[in-house]
Amino acid sequence: MILGKVVGTVWATRKDESLTGLKFQIVKHVDLEYNLKDNFLIAVDSVGAGVGEIVLVATGSSARLTAVTKNKPVDAVIMAIVDKLDVVSD
Amino acid sequence: MILGKVVGTVWATRKDESLTGLKFQIVKHVDLEYNLKDNFLIAVDSVGAGVGEIVLVATGSSARLTAVTKNKPVDAVIMAIVDKLDVVSD
Amino acid sequence: MILGKVVGTVWATRKDESLTGLKFQIVKHVDLEYNLKDNFLIAVDSVGAGVGEIVLVATGSSARLTAVTKNKPVDAVIMAIVDKLDVVSD
Amino acid sequence: MILGKVVGTVWATRKDESLTGLKFQIVKHVDLEYNLKDNFLIAVDSVGAGVGEIVLVATGSSARLTAVTKNKPVDAVIMAIVDKLDVVSD
Amino acid sequence: MILGKVVGTVWATRKDESLTGLKFQIVKHVDLEYNLKDNFLIAVDSVGAGVGEIVLVATGSSARLTAVTKNKPVDAVIMAIVDKLDVVSD
Repeated sequence: MILGKVVGTVWATRKDESLTGLKFQIVKHVDLEYNLKDNFLIAVDSVGAGVGEIVLVATGSSARLTAVTKNKPVDAVIMAIVDKLDVVSD
Repeated sequence: MILGKVVGTVWATRKDESLTGLKFQIVKHVDLEYNLKDNFLIAVDSVGAGVGEIVLVATGSSARLTAVTKNKPVDAVIMAIVDKLDVVSD
Repeated sequence: MILGKVVGTVWATRKDESLTGLKFQIVKHVDLEYNLKDNFLIAVDSVGAGVGEIVLVATGSSARLTAVTKNKPVDAVIMAIVDKLDVVSD
Repeated sequence: MILGKVVGTVWATRKDESLTGLKFQIVKHVDLEYNLKDNFLIAVDSVGAGVGEIVLVATGSSARLTAVTKNKPVDAVIMAIVDKLDVVSD
Repeated sequence: MILGKVVGTVWATRKDESLTGLKFQIVKHVDLEYNLKDNFLIAVDSVGAGVGEIVLVATGSSARLTAVTKNKPVDAVIMAIVDKLDVVSD
């Protein structure tokens, strides 16, 4: 999975009809100190993640394995909100 | 999903027969201020996206989860046209 | 999909038996002016694409959605030969 | 598969309910001398891999082919703990 | 597919039980003159590829479409041993 931070939301009224009601969040990749990286992706939220939260994003076909994204043209889903990381220094 | 801008169209008469009638759009990646990046991909349009529009592209097997791409050798589909982004500054 | 140019062929007699008879083409990525990039991949041809032709390549599980690649260990297929691009300048 | 080293753990109480009980490990990519690289990913552990161990990670839909990740929104799984590498110098 | 060279083997006794008996080969990417590149991946061998051989690797779900990798948590498989390349100069 990708470790990221929610930095915003995408609004799109003209979309595949199966996507109505889904929340499209802008997620920037972060490093292990939560510093923002440049790359970002758009992910459907499935756990109520708000702007500013650190999250895990599953991509590819696995993104369709939640109740809200099942059988939909979605390739990235927020499936966890991170409490904390335990990282052993190198 | 990828955030991108439609910058053109690919014309291809010799193709897998299941692809007849599909529109192949050239989509350049954009950043959160809609500035074009170098990388691009070719995606089938499923929502009537025209040149110049900002769109969301789903890739991989999820690209086959729209009516027009179902069961076809397609790995990228335009599945939403973006109205606007709400981005919280860093 | 990837925009690419066929630059050669791979010959491999010792291979998974389901791959017998398939043509493995070397496809270099190109930019929107058809200039060759460094990265390349090997793709099965499904539309009779010859060396020098500009093509579209579908990758991942979508590569198995043509008659010649169905249920085979193939992750990239040439599924269209490009006639032309209409690109709107930036 | 990816060759990596477990460098920590992610704790997340608010997550897709199907993920309860799974262990999310932070895995940094390593080179063939086990030197850490910058890029990392989050993978579910399926073989009891602890911090400091060198592991193999399967990604994409293949990540769902273990007992603990079956049908879950998971795109990376630790499926082996490495004993050793035999590498022929260039 | 990826063009690569087998440069070694991974030994792992503690692994998903479905992986018992599989051979995990270290495959470095090569260019069209067979020069080694830095990036490498670990792939299951399905055609008896030995160290030093030039091979094709299929990744993603397609990696599970061989007899030895079917339904297993494997995302890369060696599915052909290359005899030769015919490359047309740029």
